[in-house]
Amino acid sequence: MATATALQVNCDRMLHRLDQLAQIGSIPGGGVCRLALTDEDKAGRDQVVAWMKALGLTITVDQLGNVVGTRPGLEAGPPVMTGSHIDTVATGGRYDGNLGVLAGLEVIETLNERQIQTRYPLAVAFFTNEEGARFHPDMMGSWVFSGGFPVEAALAEVGTDGTTVAKELERIGYAGTVPCGSQPVKAFVELHVEQGPVLDQERIQIGAVTGVQGMIWQEFTVKGVSNHAGTTPMHLRHDAGYGASAIAVAARQLALEMGGNQVATVGSIQTKPGLVNVIAKEARLTVDLRNTDSALLHQAEAQLNNKIQEIATAEGLEITSRSLARFEPVAFDPAMIDLVAQTAAGLGLSVKHMPSGAGHDAGMIAAIAPTAMIFVPSVDGISHNVKEYTAPQDLENGANILLQVLLKLAL
Amino acid sequence: MATATALQVNCDRMLHRLDQLAQIGSIPGGGVCRLALTDEDKAGRDQVVAWMKALGLTITVDQLGNVVGTRPGLEAGPPVMTGSHIDTVATGGRYDGNLGVLAGLEVIETLNERQIQTRYPLAVAFFTNEEGARFHPDMMGSWVFSGGFPVEAALAEVGTDGTTVAKELERIGYAGTVPCGSQPVKAFVELHVEQGPVLDQERIQIGAVTGVQGMIWQEFTVKGVSNHAGTTPMHLRHDAGYGASAIAVAARQLALEMGGNQVATVGSIQTKPGLVNVIAKEARLTVDLRNTDSALLHQAEAQLNNKIQEIATAEGLEITSRSLARFEPVAFDPAMIDLVAQTAAGLGLSVKHMPSGAGHDAGMIAAIAPTAMIFVPSVDGISHNVKEYTAPQDLENGANILLQVLLKLAL
Repeated sequence: MATATALQVNCDRMLHRLDQLAQIGSIPGGGVCRLALTDEDKAGRDQVVAWMKALGLTITVDQLGNVVGTRPGLEAGPPVMTGSHIDTVATGGRYDGNLGVLAGLEVIETLNERQIQTRYPLAVAFFTNEEGARFHPDMMGSWVFSGGFPVEAALAEVGTDGTTVAKELERIGYAGTVPCGSQPVKAFVELHVEQGPVLDQERIQIGAVTGVQGMIWQEFTVKGVSNHAGTTPMHLRHDAGYGASAIAVAARQLALEMGGNQVATVGSIQTKPGLVNVIAKEARLTVDLRNTDSALLHQAEAQLNNKIQEIATAEGLEITSRSLARFEPVAFDPAMIDLVAQTAAGLGLSVKHMPSGAGHDAGMIAAIAPTAMIFVPSVDGISHNVKEYTAPQDLENGANILLQVLLKLAL
Repeated sequence: MATATALQVNCDRMLHRLDQLAQIGSIPGGGVCRLALTDEDKAGRDQVVAWMKALGLTITVDQLGNVVGTRPGLEAGPPVMTGSHIDTVATGGRYDGNLGVLAGLEVIETLNERQIQTRYPLAVAFFTNEEGARFHPDMMGSWVFSGGFPVEAALAEVGTDGTTVAKELERIGYAGTVPCGSQPVKAFVELHVEQGPVLDQERIQIGAVTGVQGMIWQEFTVKGVSNHAGTTPMHLRHDAGYGASAIAVAARQLALEMGGNQVATVGSIQTKPGLVNVIAKEARLTVDLRNTDSALLHQAEAQLNNKIQEIATAEGLEITSRSLARFEPVAFDPAMIDLVAQTAAGLGLSVKHMPSGAGHDAGMIAAIAPTAMIFVPSVDGISHNVKEYTAPQDLENGANILLQVLLKLAL
């Protein structure tokens, strides 16, 4: 094991790949827009697959476009897997997801250079549509990969632009033939930027992630009565725009009152007809609720629904909801969490055990394999934003821990 | 005067014209979409001008596309004028504006049939862009006609679709040559549906309008920080969507607390990037404040601005505003109001003195001529909506009062 411990990734090489991938779908300010299954996503996929092939990995593409590159072990059987995603939100950064995939490739290249054979196969995967920005739900690929969501339902999903997952997979050439759910995994580790401010604010180098927050995404449609903004007395209004605003304010109030890990976000509000002098007839809004504790998450949902019912009754509005995504909180494997924490400590890095506030592919894969995640700091916690940034030293630390953890699992 | 009092409009003929005009730009449910200066507006204008010509009126079109059809009097000089507008909101009804113009034509036709000559000229006008749904501000045409707003500024206004008033007037052939502000008016009376629920609820037949509420339209742009909805603790957020919602809730709360005639409406809210799992970076909303009392209206604006400043400070948001329209409350001419009320009472109709909650062209013309308005009931107060409805008997009552009032002013 002495050789393995001395082994380190080539950070410059990894940074170069991160730079190259970030050119594809680049947007002003250094960010990236590679929404799932767009032309930009295809170009990014083609680049990563080309790298995988150059490293000698065997490529499989499943029915939902999840791509796995495998390096054989001395024994056959399920691989020790790492990976993440390369799709981004419309205003994404260059590290979210991409780091986990390209650090995986860097681990493979480091092992190739040193001609280190592992006992078990090693695999690097990237999963389709982790962000959920174009097609709901997010973590779609890893959820289907781990058998939690039917591939037929995922393929039939209609995107924000009216296209379907199936058609777009066909169009970009990533409608593979490997059945989803047919690939067992021995263990899974995902390296990811924190996407939150905790490590950066506390100046800690590595997060040993204990699990993923559960989340509930809902879209509410508020129906009222369109009417003249000047002539309709306040008490006779059925104002859908007010209803939506009141829900948004209530969601935030609820999260503040519950405290702890509870967060609530209304990311989208739209009113119709959306005119200055017309009381809105309809409004739509999304509500994203998250908590690490399942019971508290469901309590938040119930309390918000009660509040929404109160608003509907008080204002004479019809409010309906549509579920966009629901994920229960995930607790990672204790032995895997310890492995990450001890590896980091062994390399002299500071470590914090922490939950993930964001959903991740690892949260899905945890259903079928012992799983853990490694977090590195995000400056100011900024993510889903072109200003997302992690310092090179932190990227290198994360990749070196990934290397050591994968070796301990696969050697 | 005995002859004049016995005189009545031909209601069927007026209803037929209302029907015909409502076919132009008709939308499902019986409503109309003839946004100012669109192809539909042009077709509506062409139809009304054709009717005016058939009635022998002399047509003028001014630089802003305001159209006046004049019937000569025994004496030359400024006409006694009636009129309104024929543009609609995107989800408009068929009576708003159109009734005032077509009732004016019906009065002319009734006088023509009976070969009644008036001492002063009579004129029927329709004013450009009363609704303000495509180009701000509303009441644009009558405001420029009465010299309150510079024609150059109106022509340069950029619409919601990026076009300008000048270009669209040229395109539809209504960029006239008569200088705006050059046409004196002896007196002005506008017949309009109430667009509010008061007459309908109180089962009163005619409103003698005492004046028009003042109004302040503002657009607020809220700038925050886009960030991940899962990983950003509530207390570290700068959520533009929440800021906009809090303003909408505060506006309504303010109007309820002030009571009286104060109303407040947030008709449009939009968030960017508008994704379920991204804290909004920017939000835009409109606020429409109205009151019949100038001091109270300005108090409402000041209180709302204070509240918005509080929200900006508490949430770390940058909130800027843009004025879309400002109109001081208007008080109509007392003798003109009495004339409407007494004429209605003389015909055995119930009358209520009431302010107008909506802005109207008459509110602009009041700056240059003794002015009054006649309201007829709107069922359930519904307006700016395809369900806008006024019963034929009420339409007929309104037109007959318009006829009598115009005769009393012009004979």
